[in-house]
Amino acid sequence: MHLKTITTAVLAGSLLASPGWSQDDTEFTIPENQAATASQLAEAGLESDLAWDIVESLTTEIGPRLGGSEAEARARDWGVRTLTELGFANVRIEEFEMPYWERGELDVAIVSPFPQAMAATELGGSAATPEGGVTAEIVFFESFDDLQDAPAGVLEGRIAYINDRMVRAHDGAGYGPANRKRSLGWIEAQARGAVGLLIRSVGTDSHRMPHTGNMSRVTENTLAQGSLSDVAADYVRATYPDLAEAPARSQIPAIALSAPDADQVERIHRMGEAMEVSLRASGGWQSTTTSGNVIGEIVGRELPEEIIVIGGHLDSWDEGTGAVDDGAGIAITVAAARLIAELPENPRRTIRVVMFGAEEVGLLGGFDYAQRYADSLGDHVVASESDFGAGPVWRLSSNVSADGTAAMDEILRIIAPYGVIRGERAGGGGGPDIIPMAMRGVPTFRLEQEGSDYFDLHHTPDDTLDKIDPDELAQNVAVWAATVYLAAELDVEFRTADEQAGRD
Amino acid sequence: MHLKTITTAVLAGSLLASPGWSQDDTEFTIPENQAATASQLAEAGLESDLAWDIVESLTTEIGPRLGGSEAEARARDWGVRTLTELGFANVRIEEFEMPYWERGELDVAIVSPFPQAMAATELGGSAATPEGGVTAEIVFFESFDDLQDAPAGVLEGRIAYINDRMVRAHDGAGYGPANRKRSLGWIEAQARGAVGLLIRSVGTDSHRMPHTGNMSRVTENTLAQGSLSDVAADYVRATYPDLAEAPARSQIPAIALSAPDADQVERIHRMGEAMEVSLRASGGWQSTTTSGNVIGEIVGRELPEEIIVIGGHLDSWDEGTGAVDDGAGIAITVAAARLIAELPENPRRTIRVVMFGAEEVGLLGGFDYAQRYADSLGDHVVASESDFGAGPVWRLSSNVSADGTAAMDEILRIIAPYGVIRGERAGGGGGPDIIPMAMRGVPTFRLEQEGSDYFDLHHTPDDTLDKIDPDELAQNVAVWAATVYLAAELDVEFRTADEQAGRD
Repeated sequence: MHLKTITTAVLAGSLLASPGWSQDDTEFTIPENQAATASQLAEAGLESDLAWDIVESLTTEIGPRLGGSEAEARARDWGVRTLTELGFANVRIEEFEMPYWERGELDVAIVSPFPQAMAATELGGSAATPEGGVTAEIVFFESFDDLQDAPAGVLEGRIAYINDRMVRAHDGAGYGPANRKRSLGWIEAQARGAVGLLIRSVGTDSHRMPHTGNMSRVTENTLAQGSLSDVAADYVRATYPDLAEAPARSQIPAIALSAPDADQVERIHRMGEAMEVSLRASGGWQSTTTSGNVIGEIVGRELPEEIIVIGGHLDSWDEGTGAVDDGAGIAITVAAARLIAELPENPRRTIRVVMFGAEEVGLLGGFDYAQRYADSLGDHVVASESDFGAGPVWRLSSNVSADGTAAMDEILRIIAPYGVIRGERAGGGGGPDIIPMAMRGVPTFRLEQEGSDYFDLHHTPDDTLDKIDPDELAQNVAVWAATVYLAAELDVEFRTADEQAGRD
Repeated sequence: MHLKTITTAVLAGSLLASPGWSQDDTEFTIPENQAATASQLAEAGLESDLAWDIVESLTTEIGPRLGGSEAEARARDWGVRTLTELGFANVRIEEFEMPYWERGELDVAIVSPFPQAMAATELGGSAATPEGGVTAEIVFFESFDDLQDAPAGVLEGRIAYINDRMVRAHDGAGYGPANRKRSLGWIEAQARGAVGLLIRSVGTDSHRMPHTGNMSRVTENTLAQGSLSDVAADYVRATYPDLAEAPARSQIPAIALSAPDADQVERIHRMGEAMEVSLRASGGWQSTTTSGNVIGEIVGRELPEEIIVIGGHLDSWDEGTGAVDDGAGIAITVAAARLIAELPENPRRTIRVVMFGAEEVGLLGGFDYAQRYADSLGDHVVASESDFGAGPVWRLSSNVSADGTAAMDEILRIIAPYGVIRGERAGGGGGPDIIPMAMRGVPTFRLEQEGSDYFDLHHTPDDTLDKIDPDELAQNVAVWAATVYLAAELDVEFRTADEQAGRD
């Protein structure tokens, strides 16, 4: 077999424009025929309509599919049908039980000084208002930090409002900071006596589109992490004594306003006017329900027990049709795998495509997967999820062994022509549903997508098919097909020695 | 007084780049001091924050203000307060009675083959569904024309859906053709036995934002214009025999889907699937209510009885805060007039600023004005409304006497540096609320705005303050201040001999 002779060490010397191209002396060479196959897969991906057809089918024929809902069950059937029709092996649903929260009716209005209705949405986990709703004064906080600094009792009988804006960034870096108010605002407000929480939507658009999203439950772990203020932590210990048994859930309505409505609240506040707001919300927790992961495989020809996990999440928030979050991720990974399955022979390792269930409501499919496969996670060679919309892949990050990192450096050379640069070599994660298995040592990589606009749509009714650019979607398929093929085919160990030891 | 000596005839010869600059031999010269004053006003307009402050105040302190609603009454009080504080004379409300339609609750969902909720809004004048709603098959029409071509009875017990898209255009030229389905779709559907009408929103965006808007009532005039199909015309004559007494109103629910939802319907239709949709709508006509125009004046120093009418409409649709439609028009014209009022002396003629009421629901304020002032319309020298958003003015059209046209050509030279070219010299209208007085012979001009994006927001919840660019708003004020000042000051007759004769 004729091998490429250029090593990463040589490249590091010759490509002055790529400082840090190779950070150690580990060398790896992709055999020429495998490099050629990967490039052919990428070219085929660029020409393929399959991902578009998949996401069009999912968003049209199923539409919104909240984790645990009847619509998500229909989506699982769709997933089985789709994977079967595309020739995947071992197609199956792996069900799990889950707590189920459902949106209700919602009315939010400024009562005084300037009466008017607001565009708003309940956050996942929000409690209903008392029958007839609640009307109370707003206490305006510039930021989540300001709320955390507020003394106990300051919100007694009032509604907390948190105003901070999300910063737009290529890689979505603004999400984490802005999202604190959504995930833990409720407990900080409730701890201080609030009868409700309003937040500026976690998003980057300026449309009348409130962004929903899950609130965090408070666990022993939350307390241990120190992410709560002392006021909230003390309150949690006093109010939820059985925290080890059942995590603390919100007892107050928690609601996001659209950006223009948040602007309105901010303007009125800056005028020095006291503001009364009425809330009427009926969402809440329902009976336990069923979700599940849908799985299909391309069985490895030489090492079938070694698993590459790729996928997206099948569920969506309930107000959009889940096109960019995460129909696109399902479509990209299924289409990429299908292209690989069309090769004359399967790759050496098994490619397992997972359509994770109930991601939006707590990575439940990811946790179920990691638990269900706890005994075989040592056989999981590397894992990655596509879950950041449908923008083009621009960066490859990885968190794998030294040998695997050198291989990833070489894989990058194959996909670089499609507009991809090398990112982190010891981080970057593998996507939300991969976290539970990564916590147990499964190596990860990520094909990072351009996401400047992602949070314009994220968790809004506006997450619909028309927002996907078919060419950008196809670029994703191209890059995924080449990368996943090589991960499954190359004679390289992505796991560290420790991880491999964990196999036994 | 030193006069500018360049005439339009000279300019026509010297400015080769402006073919048609002057189309007849009429000459007009703007006295130099008046030209200088106009330019100073324009410069002051460009620097002024007043229009922004006005539209911010209206959209924040009143917010949505449907014609005839309690909120519109609050807006009238706001108008009186605003005009009084700004020093206008003869500030008053001129009330009128009006029929009042109010939105209700609405649920629209695809029942089969792919159950999912739709983002939709009732059109103004829509009838409620029977208690419990209605579920029926959709009949898909590519266009309003296709519906008009359909035979009688074809929609018996079914729901008509009209799919045609609005074309995006600088001057909004796509609105008229697309709007036929909104204004008269209901009667064409009802005439054929439909139990409901769904349309693709009349708009140019692709957001989950349905566009509402008024449906036309059918009158003797509608029949005379021949805008109905024979099927519909025959049906109207048979079903609404008292048309001369009371116009025909919809007896079926009429609903607009957002563009992404319309895409969904279209996709399912193209798949060849029959579609069942459920509608539950509770909007409808209420008791007669009160609206009104709010008026303030800058009394002319020499010819106080000669009136220049400018303004915008005070009402908005009920789902947005009416920033671009038409808070901007109110703000631009009030701010421009205020700048003129700050001159050392008032212009020769009276400038009357009118905040028209209930425009969206049938130009009711405009009709009331033309009727109320029927006897003095001959004293109305020229009239214009700003009602096309907050984009920059790019073209001056006019429909005035030959002398007046020559003067407008010269006014154009003053405002051209702000990015304005000359448009129609015998047309262009004066804006919606001006139509009733223009029909009775009042000359008009229009400062046409760039409106490529206007129909992204028009009649949606997304019509909010954040969509206005303060610099573009100020450009409007600049151009309006210069133009209106000159119209009120110049020694020129905008009315034709006939119109002047009508004064007596």
